[in-house]
Amino acid sequence: MKFTIQRDYFIAQLNDTLKAISPRTTLPVLTGIKLDVFDNRLVLTGSDSEVSIEITIPSELNHEEILTVEDKGSIVLPGRFFVDIIKKLPADTVTIETNDQFQAKITSGQSEFNVSGIDSDQYPLLPQVSEEEAITLPVKVLKNIIKQTNFAVSTSETRPVLTGVNWLIRDNVLNCTATDSHRLALRKLKLEDTNINEINVIIPGKALSELNKIIGDNENTIDIFFASNQVLFKVGHINFISRLLEGNYPDTSRLFPESSETALSINNGDFFHAIDRASLLAREGGNNVIKLSATDNAVELSSTSPEIGTVKEDVKTTKFDGTGIKISFNSKYMMDALRAIDVDDVRVEFFGTMRPFILKPDEDDNLIQLILPIRTY
Amino acid sequence: MKFTIQRDYFIAQLNDTLKAISPRTTLPVLTGIKLDVFDNRLVLTGSDSEVSIEITIPSELNHEEILTVEDKGSIVLPGRFFVDIIKKLPADTVTIETNDQFQAKITSGQSEFNVSGIDSDQYPLLPQVSEEEAITLPVKVLKNIIKQTNFAVSTSETRPVLTGVNWLIRDNVLNCTATDSHRLALRKLKLEDTNINEINVIIPGKALSELNKIIGDNENTIDIFFASNQVLFKVGHINFISRLLEGNYPDTSRLFPESSETALSINNGDFFHAIDRASLLAREGGNNVIKLSATDNAVELSSTSPEIGTVKEDVKTTKFDGTGIKISFNSKYMMDALRAIDVDDVRVEFFGTMRPFILKPDEDDNLIQLILPIRTY
Repeated sequence: MKFTIQRDYFIAQLNDTLKAISPRTTLPVLTGIKLDVFDNRLVLTGSDSEVSIEITIPSELNHEEILTVEDKGSIVLPGRFFVDIIKKLPADTVTIETNDQFQAKITSGQSEFNVSGIDSDQYPLLPQVSEEEAITLPVKVLKNIIKQTNFAVSTSETRPVLTGVNWLIRDNVLNCTATDSHRLALRKLKLEDTNINEINVIIPGKALSELNKIIGDNENTIDIFFASNQVLFKVGHINFISRLLEGNYPDTSRLFPESSETALSINNGDFFHAIDRASLLAREGGNNVIKLSATDNAVELSSTSPEIGTVKEDVKTTKFDGTGIKISFNSKYMMDALRAIDVDDVRVEFFGTMRPFILKPDEDDNLIQLILPIRTY
Repeated sequence: MKFTIQRDYFIAQLNDTLKAISPRTTLPVLTGIKLDVFDNRLVLTGSDSEVSIEITIPSELNHEEILTVEDKGSIVLPGRFFVDIIKKLPADTVTIETNDQFQAKITSGQSEFNVSGIDSDQYPLLPQVSEEEAITLPVKVLKNIIKQTNFAVSTSETRPVLTGVNWLIRDNVLNCTATDSHRLALRKLKLEDTNINEINVIIPGKALSELNKIIGDNENTIDIFFASNQVLFKVGHINFISRLLEGNYPDTSRLFPESSETALSINNGDFFHAIDRASLLAREGGNNVIKLSATDNAVELSSTSPEIGTVKEDVKTTKFDGTGIKISFNSKYMMDALRAIDVDDVRVEFFGTMRPFILKPDEDDNLIQLILPIRTY
């Protein structure tokens, strides 16, 4: 195999491919990047066996030649080391040529590397995902869904299904749910023109955050294909394939209470920053617990740590219904939820001191953040 | 004590004070920042007992009031935690008031913190440095000296004196020497108008790099005062005091050979980047060794690592005198030296395959970088 490629463009694609590669893999060949050279394109593959990324580089892009193929062929080159070399080469283009001993000669300007590779036959085959059960989403919407739910997945492996986000499609509505059993994030989205009857899968949280980093802002839509144990995200020249988590996701629908005892609206930024400050002391005290006391038209936040000190913050509410309430919460969960809501006015609904409370955008029911309180009062 | 201060300006000064503070200190009071409030100024002190930083905040700066003092007094507040609070407060100003129990009330906007402090009498007294033996340097020159020598100090504590930079003033010349016994950096500077007879001190490398981070680019000159076991750097409103290292610095003058067997001039950037690339392989191979072969008007760099591969780089020389040479070196030492030289044309002089070689700016003898070769040829 032999080809010459524009170095800058190559680096960008290699960096994306690297995102699927983990230095801690049980299969050594997976520390490498697979290069498959065809007549008029180069396909890069990286995988950690959970997530695989496949990037196709065409010979021309926007009427500019970026890739010249002289000989077809395949090889696996040592991932990070290979990318480091390409990044530091002196010239605008780089030529890569392999021989029968799986040696790659990399030349650019007055620089010449000879790097030992691995036969691409040793690289595992990527799962094939049938393209039958599919939905198409605007990229911005998908990025939003990830941002609004993914932070709430569990980081503990005690209940593996909770490390993923449950994507449930039913009655033309996509419900994305994440919970670590202390807090829960739910995002609903009405789907247009889908022929899907029902989909109920759990996508690993790690895969979704890698996907989020890779999708460029200049792509418009993303196609998502569901198979029995894989999901394929297809965006531009990138195929992103993730294994699905096995097991049954818990039914969380019964967690949402009916009518609130206390409901208030509050400025997101003011509320967030007041909690952020109070959390400095709560964190230093070692427990992250903040007390909230809502009365009439203001919220008082406070935290006390006997050896360190006390903090008190006042934030005005813009609406207030129901009775006053005192409740305690973990500052991190509250800040995560407010960050995910990302609109100026937040609605907070309480159902009693010992029951979960919810946060959502004021006058929008498609995003709900639910948080379990901490018993202190 | 009670005062109100512009928050942004306060944060900048606190950040500088923090640089002297280490979370791992044997004396708990040193994890704090000492605040001394006088009639018309506030003095901040941070120290890890090796390095101390004293910053004076005046009540006015450029005809703008930044500090209003209501009551004089002193307190020690928990360093990083206190700074984190000040950074996150909501308003442009912050008021700090202490009571007899060493509690500080910190208020800004609708935010109120009460933080436990420590009696400032428990804070150690800073060493007094007499202002007799002094030199004044342009800030840019001092920063250059630090950059050109400090990287070469030893990071190992087996010979503690080598973790510092030897500052030797003799015959109106300042000689700054740093070595880790594998390479050596020497910077000479002619001093004007000094009444110093002889100074021979060892300044800890860590202190010099902290100093370098703190000195702003908008100061013109820095005053340096030498005492028997301390050095004081005085720049703008900052006093930076460092302990000196005890012991005798080795005499390194006999290390520099007389006449070279091979001497060449080469473009710094081309040489640096070629070594940088070759070092990718040298590093991956685990030994950092690069072979250099200088012949007539070109330098060939190469490195081989049996399992990984080979690399070959060619760099043209601009001048070449003497015989060809083959020599091996540690890529890191070479790159550090080239970075410190920081001019386009570098002179490299060799004295034989087994003897140290030197690098310096072409046609400037005030900076010399000396490197010991590695035996491979």
